[in-house]
Amino acid sequence: MPVRLTESLTTTEPLAEIFSDSSVLGAMLDFEVALARAEARLKIIPSDAAETIAACARPAAFDAASLAQAAPLAGTPAIPVVDALIEAVRKKDPAGAGFVHWGSTSQDLSDTALVLLLKKAHPVFERDLERLEVALGRISREHRRTLMLGRTLLQPAPPTTFGLKTAGWLAAIHRCRRRLHSAFDEALILEFGGASGTLAALDNQGIAVGKLVADELGLAFPEAPWHAHRDRLAALVCACGVLGGALGKMARDVSLLTEHGVSELSEPAAPGRGRSSSMPHKRNPVGCSVALAAVNRLPGLISSFLSGMPQEHERGLGGWQAEWPTVASTVQAVGAAAAAMAEVAEGLVINAESMRRNIDRTRGVIFGERAIRLSKKIDRDRARRFIEQATRTSIDESRRLSDVLGEMPEVRGHLDQADLDDLESPEHYLGMAEEFQDRLLASTEESFADKRGPTKE
Amino acid sequence: MPVRLTESLTTTEPLAEIFSDSSVLGAMLDFEVALARAEARLKIIPSDAAETIAACARPAAFDAASLAQAAPLAGTPAIPVVDALIEAVRKKDPAGAGFVHWGSTSQDLSDTALVLLLKKAHPVFERDLERLEVALGRISREHRRTLMLGRTLLQPAPPTTFGLKTAGWLAAIHRCRRRLHSAFDEALILEFGGASGTLAALDNQGIAVGKLVADELGLAFPEAPWHAHRDRLAALVCACGVLGGALGKMARDVSLLTEHGVSELSEPAAPGRGRSSSMPHKRNPVGCSVALAAVNRLPGLISSFLSGMPQEHERGLGGWQAEWPTVASTVQAVGAAAAAMAEVAEGLVINAESMRRNIDRTRGVIFGERAIRLSKKIDRDRARRFIEQATRTSIDESRRLSDVLGEMPEVRGHLDQADLDDLESPEHYLGMAEEFQDRLLASTEESFADKRGPTKE
Amino acid sequence: MPVRLTESLTTTEPLAEIFSDSSVLGAMLDFEVALARAEARLKIIPSDAAETIAACARPAAFDAASLAQAAPLAGTPAIPVVDALIEAVRKKDPAGAGFVHWGSTSQDLSDTALVLLLKKAHPVFERDLERLEVALGRISREHRRTLMLGRTLLQPAPPTTFGLKTAGWLAAIHRCRRRLHSAFDEALILEFGGASGTLAALDNQGIAVGKLVADELGLAFPEAPWHAHRDRLAALVCACGVLGGALGKMARDVSLLTEHGVSELSEPAAPGRGRSSSMPHKRNPVGCSVALAAVNRLPGLISSFLSGMPQEHERGLGGWQAEWPTVASTVQAVGAAAAAMAEVAEGLVINAESMRRNIDRTRGVIFGERAIRLSKKIDRDRARRFIEQATRTSIDESRRLSDVLGEMPEVRGHLDQADLDDLESPEHYLGMAEEFQDRLLASTEESFADKRGPTKE
Amino acid sequence: MPVRLTESLTTTEPLAEIFSDSSVLGAMLDFEVALARAEARLKIIPSDAAETIAACARPAAFDAASLAQAAPLAGTPAIPVVDALIEAVRKKDPAGAGFVHWGSTSQDLSDTALVLLLKKAHPVFERDLERLEVALGRISREHRRTLMLGRTLLQPAPPTTFGLKTAGWLAAIHRCRRRLHSAFDEALILEFGGASGTLAALDNQGIAVGKLVADELGLAFPEAPWHAHRDRLAALVCACGVLGGALGKMARDVSLLTEHGVSELSEPAAPGRGRSSSMPHKRNPVGCSVALAAVNRLPGLISSFLSGMPQEHERGLGGWQAEWPTVASTVQAVGAAAAAMAEVAEGLVINAESMRRNIDRTRGVIFGERAIRLSKKIDRDRARRFIEQATRTSIDESRRLSDVLGEMPEVRGHLDQADLDDLESPEHYLGMAEEFQDRLLASTEESFADKRGPTKE
Repeated sequence: MPVRLTESLTTTEPLAEIFSDSSVLGAMLDFEVALARAEARLKIIPSDAAETIAACARPAAFDAASLAQAAPLAGTPAIPVVDALIEAVRKKDPAGAGFVHWGSTSQDLSDTALVLLLKKAHPVFERDLERLEVALGRISREHRRTLMLGRTLLQPAPPTTFGLKTAGWLAAIHRCRRRLHSAFDEALILEFGGASGTLAALDNQGIAVGKLVADELGLAFPEAPWHAHRDRLAALVCACGVLGGALGKMARDVSLLTEHGVSELSEPAAPGRGRSSSMPHKRNPVGCSVALAAVNRLPGLISSFLSGMPQEHERGLGGWQAEWPTVASTVQAVGAAAAAMAEVAEGLVINAESMRRNIDRTRGVIFGERAIRLSKKIDRDRARRFIEQATRTSIDESRRLSDVLGEMPEVRGHLDQADLDDLESPEHYLGMAEEFQDRLLASTEESFADKRGPTKE
Repeated sequence: MPVRLTESLTTTEPLAEIFSDSSVLGAMLDFEVALARAEARLKIIPSDAAETIAACARPAAFDAASLAQAAPLAGTPAIPVVDALIEAVRKKDPAGAGFVHWGSTSQDLSDTALVLLLKKAHPVFERDLERLEVALGRISREHRRTLMLGRTLLQPAPPTTFGLKTAGWLAAIHRCRRRLHSAFDEALILEFGGASGTLAALDNQGIAVGKLVADELGLAFPEAPWHAHRDRLAALVCACGVLGGALGKMARDVSLLTEHGVSELSEPAAPGRGRSSSMPHKRNPVGCSVALAAVNRLPGLISSFLSGMPQEHERGLGGWQAEWPTVASTVQAVGAAAAAMAEVAEGLVINAESMRRNIDRTRGVIFGERAIRLSKKIDRDRARRFIEQATRTSIDESRRLSDVLGEMPEVRGHLDQADLDDLESPEHYLGMAEEFQDRLLASTEESFADKRGPTKE
Repeated sequence: MPVRLTESLTTTEPLAEIFSDSSVLGAMLDFEVALARAEARLKIIPSDAAETIAACARPAAFDAASLAQAAPLAGTPAIPVVDALIEAVRKKDPAGAGFVHWGSTSQDLSDTALVLLLKKAHPVFERDLERLEVALGRISREHRRTLMLGRTLLQPAPPTTFGLKTAGWLAAIHRCRRRLHSAFDEALILEFGGASGTLAALDNQGIAVGKLVADELGLAFPEAPWHAHRDRLAALVCACGVLGGALGKMARDVSLLTEHGVSELSEPAAPGRGRSSSMPHKRNPVGCSVALAAVNRLPGLISSFLSGMPQEHERGLGGWQAEWPTVASTVQAVGAAAAAMAEVAEGLVINAESMRRNIDRTRGVIFGERAIRLSKKIDRDRARRFIEQATRTSIDESRRLSDVLGEMPEVRGHLDQADLDDLESPEHYLGMAEEFQDRLLASTEESFADKRGPTKE
Repeated sequence: MPVRLTESLTTTEPLAEIFSDSSVLGAMLDFEVALARAEARLKIIPSDAAETIAACARPAAFDAASLAQAAPLAGTPAIPVVDALIEAVRKKDPAGAGFVHWGSTSQDLSDTALVLLLKKAHPVFERDLERLEVALGRISREHRRTLMLGRTLLQPAPPTTFGLKTAGWLAAIHRCRRRLHSAFDEALILEFGGASGTLAALDNQGIAVGKLVADELGLAFPEAPWHAHRDRLAALVCACGVLGGALGKMARDVSLLTEHGVSELSEPAAPGRGRSSSMPHKRNPVGCSVALAAVNRLPGLISSFLSGMPQEHERGLGGWQAEWPTVASTVQAVGAAAAAMAEVAEGLVINAESMRRNIDRTRGVIFGERAIRLSKKIDRDRARRFIEQATRTSIDESRRLSDVLGEMPEVRGHLDQADLDDLESPEHYLGMAEEFQDRLLASTEESFADKRGPTKE
């Protein structure tokens, strides 16, 4: 149960679990074990030492709280962890203690641990994104002909379809997911460079050791250590931020469509969901709220990460030391948003009648553009002015635009009654809505799983 | 032991404790108890109910983890907490259950709890700031005449004193602390508005109740509820950010002065402090590292807070829901930086010899400006060109500037030997250093404690 | 006409004028003239030189474009400006050329120029803030009893008044303005420290010179140079950001109240205002759009400024060099938002009928909380459940809550018909709305002008 | 000459030119012309009208300043531009005026114009990146065996090579450039959706028109309009931010290596470059300063962009309206950094002697790790403690580590004299430096030009 009250709206349980102390310790110890075994295999350290190290490397045997407490003095949580591991090994095998962490530096450990946590986190929010995409795809196809108001600058505009709208959300989220996927592909690499990034303590075996460690951990082996080159992590963090923006766009739209007086959508009804502590009638759009809250945090977190990129020399001061909480918050925030929107999409209550009624309530003024177009026989510039005048009258007198137009002599002569009768039919003024929807849906049909192959873990 | 590994470099134990579940729950329950008692006193609810509520409101009796888990469904941790309190009260006094949280709304609870946490946090990092100021004041006075290189754009410049430099750090930190102090003064107010911010459920007794609650909690009572007006919190968060910048400036300076080849300062030596996991000789400036890491996080956190300010209507969607983790991280980050720099300042190792030697190593070229000034008898514009030429020669041939100048016929005629002899005496080229130092130190001599009066708590 | 197309939505003409090349050059030259005159007065440089410098220091005589072009090579625009001034003086008075910028450093010039621009900018957006406050105060008083829906999490809530809502906007903006005012007071100070911040080139006359320069420019004289201590500017930039948030909150609210189907407010009608290029019926809330756009920029700008605060030693590398565009954009963005909202407030079209109708459309469900309260005779916990059930029925069957309640036997026994009749009267469920409004309005009645005294300029 | 003084350090002339009014107008008019011609070709509007539109669409014929002034009233600069074009066409061909902008909406125009500006900007900073990469590649190969101190947490560490260090900069920049390249590929697409994103005004010809317009403008045609889906632009802006971070890392490193007392690098010498206005000896690292200043701005700009992503419905309010200045500043900042670092790299003055001397000055303590490794015959854990003690002695007594070790009896028995003699040879303690360098250089050898094909324009 790793979620805290202060962060309860900006994470999910599985993600909070991944960044919990036991999981972090687990990732750190996995690195140390993989390193010891690789070095034993290459005869750099004794096999016995490696096995003792592996035997001692059980997260439960360590006191995370006191390790965390020691971190500021050491400048990193990695040193206390290594010290504790050495201590544990020393008790069993005094000679083996000297081989713990051999040839490595504390940032190798902390960076690789972070990468391992990211590796575990990705499938977690991938599952929510997949659920979200499936739900949106289904809704989009079902509502291919569900008419609704277009809305621009929060004002009513010519009609669109709910199918197109959901396809737009879906395709944007899908593009973000694709980018995120390749950002993860790039970032899931071993950090292993030793004190100065040359692996000098391992003579000419550094790369050989590194490749074995990477294999063992299911990570790629990079061209060189990246202690002070954080672009891959930065690109990943940014991809989370952009995905957050796309989720936030959907959440903003859904929440506005749940407003009283609009009432086109409701969040799923479930016991306890969206209740108010003071108002019995409320069904708050809490999924959107959680998504928007999570998304609100992301741009600042991304900017923190980017600000820390100019890290000094072989390993910097203050830059990478700030990354753990930033990356952890970023991943959890975007994951919380994905989970919230998946739940919203799966149970979304769609009120097609309200959608239609809200079109009708505009009394046709949203078809002014269409009226201009219909007036083929008069100069368009003049037509525009007539229509503007008619629109104004329609709004001021609460009459239908077609009725107002029908009474204007300048218009009557040029617009057929049939045209006027049809003017306000939203289903006849949808342009490319279906084609755009099809194109968007088609763009989401690739499969990611194929590309990367089965994930270990 | 509330510090996590992922955040171990960006908090301190006392601050992490304040944002721990038990402390958060405690603050939330304090509000509910104060509310019930105020309402009982004003005969709005039965006294018995209030006492049952108070009796049930023990943090230890609640399961924070399951409350956190319920938060996303409710859209806030406040609702599950109220529900749990109602449940607890119902077991003892079924009729009393209906009076829990009476007239209040969930955001009253979550906002006031946040304010109460801030109230506890302030003295914690005030103590570190006070330690830091005392240490810097002492250093500044002790090193009033300790000469060191000025450095601009990372290049050597005319001399300054370490006393002036530390007075500069101190005065900036002091100004930030003063601003932070008044930001806290403004922000430590009750939130109490009920569902729509009118306290309608309490008829005409709303303000009376609110004033009693505020008194009980040691908070001020604001003009009106501020559910969707976050400027006071924003100003507080910003004040933390600006203080962070001032701490970061000191940390940046100190860290650069510990560089090998500069070696004017070292961080305090202590067992385990600043060790490397791979390099036995290292004494890393870990205090600066922690401060810079903490400070690296702040601007992004501040920007998250500000981005969330446009909150909708009486209570918004997604804005305030994002604030808890942002505010908690902000306060902990700046507090970690303050603690780190206090420790650095208190044990700072100052190498006045290195400072002097680094001046000498410039071979006088930093006194070029002075040489121009000394050449009173020749046109300054011409003098500037002579000096530039001499400086170039000094650098290229690794000779002292005064020696080079002494050989230039154009100069000899206009510069006395005494002037030349004195040219490179840093102690004679300090301008207003002492006056500026005195003025800076004087500006820090006010006392905050007087102004606000004794803090309850 | 200094506004560019790319920035046309995030500035105003008077503010863009202040940051235009001629204004920037003017401020820079004002510093050089004030410096030369102060030094002449104190017999440090010849009076003739000072007068020649003053005579040459006409912005129109300089080619801003080529100065801007030379800036990157010099690392600051200040050096090319000084060079150009020296060149101009040399033509008239060769000996005088050596006295230009005497004892000063380029950052003295660029910082003081920035401060002078800020000094000009403040009254410009103060005027808009004053207009805004006056308009909001008027609206608030006029609409003291104009009832409207409260809205929380975008859902309907118990009623409030438009008077209280506008008083809330007003008081928040006023608090921000007060903070901004004191931030300006702190920041409008001279920068004058010479090469290393000791004014060594002026012997023991540095402070005397500085005080004369500060007087001449209408700035305060600080304790010491602040080349690398940017907290005062940071606090000012933050105060702009917080004000932006308060303006954004108002803009968000107004824009949502202009939505179709809500229609409680419209932005002022004016020829060309809020037109669409494709839709004749549109009256877009462009004022809100401009304000929200401007406000969207601010948090990132503030975070840039804060990130740059850890500036190295006596004068840093890369930090202050980034500030000009950041500060210029910040001031213009917040000024554009203030101007936009002033215009919106002054001409705001308020539809009190729509406000009332939107309350009625909720069919009383927003009074569920009140119904609980009215049911004095039954256990509140049970009452809460009855009311929740009734509310659900009211929503599902589109009936008034009071009608549903009137038919429930459990309720009938405990609720008088008079209570039921009154249940849905918003004017009887306003709690402290008027008192809160009065308190808010009273908090805005101080005058700033008195405090600072007449501004020179 | 479009660079302003306030922004002179954060842009370059060619990039400022691209975002100048005439260039922006040019891009906007290009869209209108392409649209008219496409519609004429598909017989939607008369060919004559299209040709009149094309004839009138000359940037020089428009008054950018008054268009900018009209933008806030319209909520976008696009509407005044369209109005002005209509006016111009009307003078020549009154009937043609009605066909200007036919079927399109103002955001089609402003978004496509922005994309066209980005299309022009990309090759501009690509050229600087190419220069930078070529220079770094050359330096890296030339300095394959130039030894220098590794530096971690600003403290000395085992040696590395300048070849590896530059290869690290190069490979990071190259990876960023590759990501940026694909971000541009994704983002260079037409915006064309009409009022509600359905192109309804063009019946079933919308996509056909759009494809012709896209072809004409050298842009791709997207699946659907992306008015409120900004992920592609966001990804591009982020890619700029990540590249900025990589450039900033190089600038930070270079600047620190120019510090007095380090003196391993100098920025290129050129007349006027890096001069101080007060100090004749200065050669400031102004290229790094410009790069760091530009890079300082980026994270905040990126966060502004991301914050604006949740845009409402078909076209939002306040989100996209904020993008122009943010995107323009982002592109110019990263371009300024690229240009500055290209210039620095091309003329970088490398002092290999200083590099070597700085290694020697550590008196061998950086080889402590190596000494542990050499002590094969004793328990490593014990060895570690001996070495730590020796290191401390070496530092405290200013003696070489090998000398201290040679005198320790515990060590003598286990370390050969040959080992001791070799201990401090940096060239024998480089581990995988060359292999890592080769791998990094190899990773940069792909060519971008091939991938995208010749750019039109």
